[in-house]
Amino acid sequence: MSTPHARLSINQATLKYASLPEALEVTADAGITSIGLWRDSVQAQTLPEAARLLAGSGLRFSSLCRGGFFTVPEGAARRAAMDDNRRAIAETATLAAAGAAGSAPVLVMVAGGLPQGSRDIAGARVRVQEALAELAPEALAAGVTLALEPLHPMYASDRAVLSTLKQALDLASDFSPAAVGVVIDTFHVWWDPDLQAQIVRAGAEGRIASYQVCDWRTPLAADVLLSRHYPGAGIIDFEAITRAVQDAGYAGDVEVEIFNQEIWDTAPAEVVTQTVESFDDHVAAHLRTGIRR
Amino acid sequence: MSTPHARLSINQATLKYASLPEALEVTADAGITSIGLWRDSVQAQTLPEAARLLAGSGLRFSSLCRGGFFTVPEGAARRAAMDDNRRAIAETATLAAAGAAGSAPVLVMVAGGLPQGSRDIAGARVRVQEALAELAPEALAAGVTLALEPLHPMYASDRAVLSTLKQALDLASDFSPAAVGVVIDTFHVWWDPDLQAQIVRAGAEGRIASYQVCDWRTPLAADVLLSRHYPGAGIIDFEAITRAVQDAGYAGDVEVEIFNQEIWDTAPAEVVTQTVESFDDHVAAHLRTGIRR
Repeated sequence: MSTPHARLSINQATLKYASLPEALEVTADAGITSIGLWRDSVQAQTLPEAARLLAGSGLRFSSLCRGGFFTVPEGAARRAAMDDNRRAIAETATLAAAGAAGSAPVLVMVAGGLPQGSRDIAGARVRVQEALAELAPEALAAGVTLALEPLHPMYASDRAVLSTLKQALDLASDFSPAAVGVVIDTFHVWWDPDLQAQIVRAGAEGRIASYQVCDWRTPLAADVLLSRHYPGAGIIDFEAITRAVQDAGYAGDVEVEIFNQEIWDTAPAEVVTQTVESFDDHVAAHLRTGIRR
Repeated sequence: MSTPHARLSINQATLKYASLPEALEVTADAGITSIGLWRDSVQAQTLPEAARLLAGSGLRFSSLCRGGFFTVPEGAARRAAMDDNRRAIAETATLAAAGAAGSAPVLVMVAGGLPQGSRDIAGARVRVQEALAELAPEALAAGVTLALEPLHPMYASDRAVLSTLKQALDLASDFSPAAVGVVIDTFHVWWDPDLQAQIVRAGAEGRIASYQVCDWRTPLAADVLLSRHYPGAGIIDFEAITRAVQDAGYAGDVEVEIFNQEIWDTAPAEVVTQTVESFDDHVAAHLRTGIRR
């Protein structure tokens, strides 16, 4: 097995069925030095216990997935969503402090889809803006960056009304880059004719909070959420996108985040090995190694 | 059954298993006055015979689907594709001349996906530009408009590297609007945060050659190509998009184009009835009635 690249981070979604202790162990055992965590797995124990486990692993923490889902209009459901985002901000701050040096206090934000029965995507997008205005000062105070993740437009109705990097940067522009940044996930943005220009802009504006990689291949899985693949298994040009992100100044961890039933059904240690190799073959060559925070 | 709206056109794909004579008959019998045709169905007879059938139906011809698929690099396959596009231009001119007054000499162009084994979407997009440069003068000479159709980004790898209205308009900008226009299909563009601005631009530049409607609903069909629904069955805001297209000056036919196995398995006469009613309920109210060509 190759020595893992110094900037490789395993996003825990890639190891969906592993508990937090298992995910930390298999990642560290492979020589990988960073991990991105998911809230459901963190919340399977108390937050102090999760932080203790993370600290004990010696791994960097590269992000927490995920906040957001705040497209519903004002009312009890929206207030519950906002309170949940506040908890996610606190979790992010705690975990970033518990991780090894170079950990990133980044909370990945998925906007949410159209509210039930709604056809008003423009309105839903305004709700996202309003939610950010409410949460950004609190994130800033907690030292956490809300990282807006544009999702592929095939998820625009039921998962994220935020669909392009330009749209994410436009939304972020009302706020300090320390409070609101963006996630660039190859799977979601590879098709965008405006991608290169918007990556340059994201770098110039200091907004790139996370870079996530996985591949796109057709036919899509019957559940399109599970259509993600190891880098190199599909058609994404990782050289073009990775060099652009690198040249835009992003020097942090690079997460491999894969939702794929076949990969989830594979033993986590084997998945980690495959991840290291596909990252080495298709992404690592286009990265400099130093982690700068 | 309602009286069909004067600008409603049935795109033949909605009646996939009907032959050309059957599609013409069921459309005219319902009182619909326009139809968009598909090449496979036209080519099931000679072109003069297809033109004679169309003329006999008394229907307007609103478009021919489709040309394009020209992302392959130079060589025999590309030459074959270009020749096929030339035949499609000739078919469009013949059919538009055979249709009733108000027929539109519009050839819908689907760009094509990545060539087999390629990860170079930027290169594929250049191939589209080069193909247009070759074909646009010939289309202009034939009195035919090549109507570039941006397809939803979920088809960007295997069907159309042309993914947004802005991208289509940028490509078209090298050519006369009489030679190269755009198709606005609600299913493909509803999610685009830049949609309203680009519809305004498309109108100002005289580029709107066709407006097609159908709805988006999740979960997507296992074959994502077949995820299209009657207007009103999903989440698209037909009022916002239709008013924008109308306000941008488009006064032509509005095609209902649905790929959906359940609808294809329904008797064509019943599909036409459903189409008339869903169009009436969700699209017609936002249109003026006059056809202006």
